[in-house]
Amino acid sequence: MPTAVNRQIMLVEKPAGKLTPQNFRMAEAAIPKPKVGEVLVRVLYISLDAANRAWMQGVTYREAVDQNAVMAGGTIAEVVESKVPGFFAGDLVLGDAGWQDFAVVSAEGLVKLPRTEAITHYLSVYGIAGLTAYFGLLYVGKPKSGDTVVVSAAAGSVGAFAGQIAKLKDCRVIGIAGSREKCKWLLSELGFDSAINYKEEPLFKSLKVAAPNGINVYFDNVGGDIFEACLPQMSKYGRIVCCGAVSAYDGVPPTTGPRGVPGLIVIKRLTVQGFIFTDFIAEREAALAELRSWVNAGKLQVREEIIDGLENTPDALIGLLAGENRGKRLIRVSAPKA
Amino acid sequence: MPTAVNRQIMLVEKPAGKLTPQNFRMAEAAIPKPKVGEVLVRVLYISLDAANRAWMQGVTYREAVDQNAVMAGGTIAEVVESKVPGFFAGDLVLGDAGWQDFAVVSAEGLVKLPRTEAITHYLSVYGIAGLTAYFGLLYVGKPKSGDTVVVSAAAGSVGAFAGQIAKLKDCRVIGIAGSREKCKWLLSELGFDSAINYKEEPLFKSLKVAAPNGINVYFDNVGGDIFEACLPQMSKYGRIVCCGAVSAYDGVPPTTGPRGVPGLIVIKRLTVQGFIFTDFIAEREAALAELRSWVNAGKLQVREEIIDGLENTPDALIGLLAGENRGKRLIRVSAPKA
Repeated sequence: MPTAVNRQIMLVEKPAGKLTPQNFRMAEAAIPKPKVGEVLVRVLYISLDAANRAWMQGVTYREAVDQNAVMAGGTIAEVVESKVPGFFAGDLVLGDAGWQDFAVVSAEGLVKLPRTEAITHYLSVYGIAGLTAYFGLLYVGKPKSGDTVVVSAAAGSVGAFAGQIAKLKDCRVIGIAGSREKCKWLLSELGFDSAINYKEEPLFKSLKVAAPNGINVYFDNVGGDIFEACLPQMSKYGRIVCCGAVSAYDGVPPTTGPRGVPGLIVIKRLTVQGFIFTDFIAEREAALAELRSWVNAGKLQVREEIIDGLENTPDALIGLLAGENRGKRLIRVSAPKA
Repeated sequence: MPTAVNRQIMLVEKPAGKLTPQNFRMAEAAIPKPKVGEVLVRVLYISLDAANRAWMQGVTYREAVDQNAVMAGGTIAEVVESKVPGFFAGDLVLGDAGWQDFAVVSAEGLVKLPRTEAITHYLSVYGIAGLTAYFGLLYVGKPKSGDTVVVSAAAGSVGAFAGQIAKLKDCRVIGIAGSREKCKWLLSELGFDSAINYKEEPLFKSLKVAAPNGINVYFDNVGGDIFEACLPQMSKYGRIVCCGAVSAYDGVPPTTGPRGVPGLIVIKRLTVQGFIFTDFIAEREAALAELRSWVNAGKLQVREEIIDGLENTPDALIGLLAGENRGKRLIRVSAPKA
């Protein structure tokens, strides 16, 4: 039985600096009714992504999140009531239902999911994180066997997949992460060749030691100082995969960019290319098939951090922006029906 | 008859800030003798390029220029004495003979030139400037008919060709230059659609007016503030051709790069690619054929500023770095034989 009210986490106001719990408040509303073309869903899992914070800054690859509105977020949900042909109560769906117990969503925004053992994989390895790592590394970074690949935020949801996929492509993989425990995990469990704790080690020098012949592919999730440290160490014709700029999302917008742009881009003939996973969406099925084969063969580890309780969503996002998480962080709002 | 001595302009020391005449001195040496595998050449023309200044900063796409050595530079020269089969006295050659009257050069560094009417074209439209504009615009920028193309340092040697080639490809072309006279030249003689004088106009706003639907291709010769103004105005999937960073060559190295790198590169899915014309050298003959057809048909204007006298080379380079020139600046050291 659904709970009688719809708990909703609202973004009170757009944060000027670092995101805090005070930027959110819990509200309660009636459970909405679907109109024709819509379905009522109950949220099971909420995906937490660093990009959530970027949505608060303004228009990105999606519209900005409004203040005094329910916070947006990718979710796995279960259909409660359907006014759409082809969707039935009990169906599992993927879509942006936001940070709440229930939502009315129009059918165009929903993808039906099979009822498999690990439905959370659709928010991690088979979701935005996995596809972003896959397309970004293989389509943009174009690693060749033997290449040296550096991944920042390597213990994060995208980075952990990007590094593992680079290993699957016979690259030397160097991960950059923010704690000894994360680095240990990258080395001992994910098979990275090197790991650099940028909070404790001199990043530029450690990179030089780990990549003495230069970096062929830098998969950049963070921008800022780490981008700047990698740039002069890129090999000629290297590829920098611009996937995100976490260092610039949470806090006052940085006033400057990395030195050496564009001077070093010229000298080293770098290709710096931005991308969003949907740019390659026509290849989604092929990508999922390959990801699935790696997961099933035990070659690609899927680390998910599942945190229970809608009420914990703000803290979980704030912690993610501070680098708490390892792998893909999710909120379980409600357990799926057996 | 050759003059009895070899006048040589030496780089006394690497400039810490802006290049000044005091960074150079004129010396006199004996005319050197070629050994087997070498030719003695008399310099006719010296090419002046903003990159000359970058060579003084350190290793770029070539080794750095040494202090207390003859300043390096692209030249057209005439063979005086040859110890190489296939090279004969009187042959015209292209190569780096440096800022001097005579040089001994090994044959590998020389390309023979036909004796045509306009041999200086091999230092402008058929030389590095023309090929850089051609490859950078067409191979890296990949403009489509109707695209909006912005070119910085548009009245310079590369920019003036890049903008004209973009017009030949049916693009809307906006040039950025540093004086009213240059802007007038771009509009009235080179056929640019708009021209912005960045020294007098508010660059960001003027770009917004000239490119209301955004920029598809930005051919960047300068980096710095102009790169920064273009970046947020790029259209999705736009291409930024990183050709040079003149704003960073002459003076104290800048401490920062443009804002929005890499954040905006991600959101807009930009491709930022560095290149040097030699990366595409396999296509040189095809490129020259097309450039020649445009020049011969009067569709591509070749503006050359030819300054007489080896002794004027330092001032001419210093003036070029200050934006004095329009089109390709050359030094005529000595007139070719009739």
